[in-house]
Amino acid sequence: MDELVEKALLARKAWFELANSSDSVRKKALESMSQAIIENKEKILEANSLDVEKFKKEHPSDPLLDRLILNEKRLKSAAEGLIKISQLPDPIGEVVEGWTTIHGLKIQKVRVPIGVIGVVYESRPNVTIDISGLAIKSGNAVVLRGGSEALNSNKTIAEILRDSIKDYINKDVIQIIENPDRSIVDKMLKLNGYLDLLIPRGSSSFIEYVRKNASVPVIETGAGNNHIFVNYDADLEMATKIIINAKVQRPAVCNAVRKILIHKDIAEKYVPILLKELKKYGVTVKGDESVVKIAPDVIPASEEDWDKEYMDLTLSIKIVNSVQEAVEHINKHGTKHSEAIITNNLKDAQYFTWNVDAACTYVNASIRFTDGEQFGFGAEVGISTQKLHARGPMGIKELTTTKYIIYGEGQTREI
Amino acid sequence: MDELVEKALLARKAWFELANSSDSVRKKALESMSQAIIENKEKILEANSLDVEKFKKEHPSDPLLDRLILNEKRLKSAAEGLIKISQLPDPIGEVVEGWTTIHGLKIQKVRVPIGVIGVVYESRPNVTIDISGLAIKSGNAVVLRGGSEALNSNKTIAEILRDSIKDYINKDVIQIIENPDRSIVDKMLKLNGYLDLLIPRGSSSFIEYVRKNASVPVIETGAGNNHIFVNYDADLEMATKIIINAKVQRPAVCNAVRKILIHKDIAEKYVPILLKELKKYGVTVKGDESVVKIAPDVIPASEEDWDKEYMDLTLSIKIVNSVQEAVEHINKHGTKHSEAIITNNLKDAQYFTWNVDAACTYVNASIRFTDGEQFGFGAEVGISTQKLHARGPMGIKELTTTKYIIYGEGQTREI
Repeated sequence: MDELVEKALLARKAWFELANSSDSVRKKALESMSQAIIENKEKILEANSLDVEKFKKEHPSDPLLDRLILNEKRLKSAAEGLIKISQLPDPIGEVVEGWTTIHGLKIQKVRVPIGVIGVVYESRPNVTIDISGLAIKSGNAVVLRGGSEALNSNKTIAEILRDSIKDYINKDVIQIIENPDRSIVDKMLKLNGYLDLLIPRGSSSFIEYVRKNASVPVIETGAGNNHIFVNYDADLEMATKIIINAKVQRPAVCNAVRKILIHKDIAEKYVPILLKELKKYGVTVKGDESVVKIAPDVIPASEEDWDKEYMDLTLSIKIVNSVQEAVEHINKHGTKHSEAIITNNLKDAQYFTWNVDAACTYVNASIRFTDGEQFGFGAEVGISTQKLHARGPMGIKELTTTKYIIYGEGQTREI
Repeated sequence: MDELVEKALLARKAWFELANSSDSVRKKALESMSQAIIENKEKILEANSLDVEKFKKEHPSDPLLDRLILNEKRLKSAAEGLIKISQLPDPIGEVVEGWTTIHGLKIQKVRVPIGVIGVVYESRPNVTIDISGLAIKSGNAVVLRGGSEALNSNKTIAEILRDSIKDYINKDVIQIIENPDRSIVDKMLKLNGYLDLLIPRGSSSFIEYVRKNASVPVIETGAGNNHIFVNYDADLEMATKIIINAKVQRPAVCNAVRKILIHKDIAEKYVPILLKELKKYGVTVKGDESVVKIAPDVIPASEEDWDKEYMDLTLSIKIVNSVQEAVEHINKHGTKHSEAIITNNLKDAQYFTWNVDAACTYVNASIRFTDGEQFGFGAEVGISTQKLHARGPMGIKELTTTKYIIYGEGQTREI
């Protein structure tokens, strides 16, 4: 039997026990995990430095290096996340709805774990901690396949976590796939019957690949070609502050901004102000015809630009005639992740938030808040940009499903 | 542009309007649809008789004929279903959750329509009425692809429905694909960006085909290799009544029973009683070794039998040692649809309903109740046997998704 099938089977067996465990036991397991991360930080950092050294040699000056690096602060933050998760209300067993039918059947819709969840992710080894914590709290087993560049870190973390839970729950609920071969991912995509759900995290081309090839149910975590629309009546100081935050703080993450739409009535006034501010942070600005007319030094944006998710400090600006045109443009080019309007006009705010087809729509706030930790979920498994099951940051509730439990007294159906 | 893309685009445009309509307008549209079905029943039955005559010629004595036939009673029932759906509370706009974050952001998780939903189905033309009604109530547009054998019926029904709603909402929210070519289904499976969701209804081999080939998000409606477990303390009269109802009433539907598990302590006594009753209805019984030992005239079941979804009056019986063994057998061979235990033992009932991995688990009732209409949903789009998004009968709530709407006052993210 190969590693993947073997570990998926171990995970399923352990899941059956976990699904019958009480929240207090799962809480203790999470506390123990948190403590173990802190107590073993040297060991983890040592393993991580092996990965980091190797990556540096093989990929000099790759910006992804930052995501691979663990340090005391990042470990502490992940350990605290586990405690936060442990303190959330237990999602399992919640009666979501319940009613009695005309035949006297007592129907309950009950929240239950999904089962064995596969997660494919890159670089960041702290994801191993976050996802293990969210999964255990919500009664699920995980089969984790991190990037080969983080294998030492992930193996060490998983070993420590598994060891820390074994007094409370079956440690096989956490499985790490060690085979670095890329073909393992293809196998995971087809592992129906072994995995109940697969969550891919990564580049948009990887997600596209998964969408085309998976037969296991998938939740797509997505790209963020996100927009901020500055309406005619916007507080311009606020708009600039939000745009800079969303563009500059971490330009490569999915909840950063990629496009700015500006209402025509304020374009002449606001474009120069915004350009000046963006220049301070080294942002490369492209613009549509109207923007270039106002500021001739701006690079003309091509048609393709409007569909691009820039991973660096590039930004494109477009002038629009109305909130309707802004929504139309976003629904045509956006990736349904996070979209914002800066306005004080209630009607426009409502039109925008209702009609923009995206997981998260903001009024007067930075789209950088689209994040499980920021939403109060303790951590996140990823940010879903699809419409089925979960949309937006996914925490413990998004790792559950429901079942109907029906009690009768011998009822049979007449027609 | 081909018919499919053209109609999907028309549907999307109409959807944008529908998503902004009030429940009272959608209610009026549904009432008008119901009235139009009744008023035009002759026209529909005439179109249906063309389909029926053609089918009879091409497939003499095919049991699927019954599903193709419309009559006054079936039309009346569908028209009444539309009224029931119209009276359900509006799912759209419901604030599912809401909270304020530590940064003062006001987050609302709001229920919204999914968008343009493709449905592929066979034979039964009344499905065209049910699904159109559920979709409009929940603010969605539909692209319907019924079986070519029902094309006349479906075209006529869709024409009548479209005409009946045009005073209230854009009639393009209902689209029927007329091209009878099977390749249209393959195109629908790949229509990302045009369809937000695809619901296939049909044989398990068709669902399997969809699972392997779709890149559009899919909700699988599933096969029903369903079990009834008769526990050691079961009321045997009740058990027999439920088994006969679940097996005999409509043996080809997905919520019929295919396997009976009997606790060893009552096997000697109960197997002969049950066999005698099943014989009255012409049921062909297969059994495991222990059953054959008790009743030597029973056909020995093969290993494959335990995975089969018999579509006729065949039934297999197995003796098990405990509720644990029953659950283990069901989780290994079941299709996660509907499973029942007949018992008066509370602990066993709870063990069974919690640990059987299925959309619907019953205690002391017929599994034939797994049905949107019986659950009180007015009608159903299908019965989901997958774990993501929707599980069990799907009504209007299952045709919605959620989005987060976040109001701030200029908040930016610090870390």
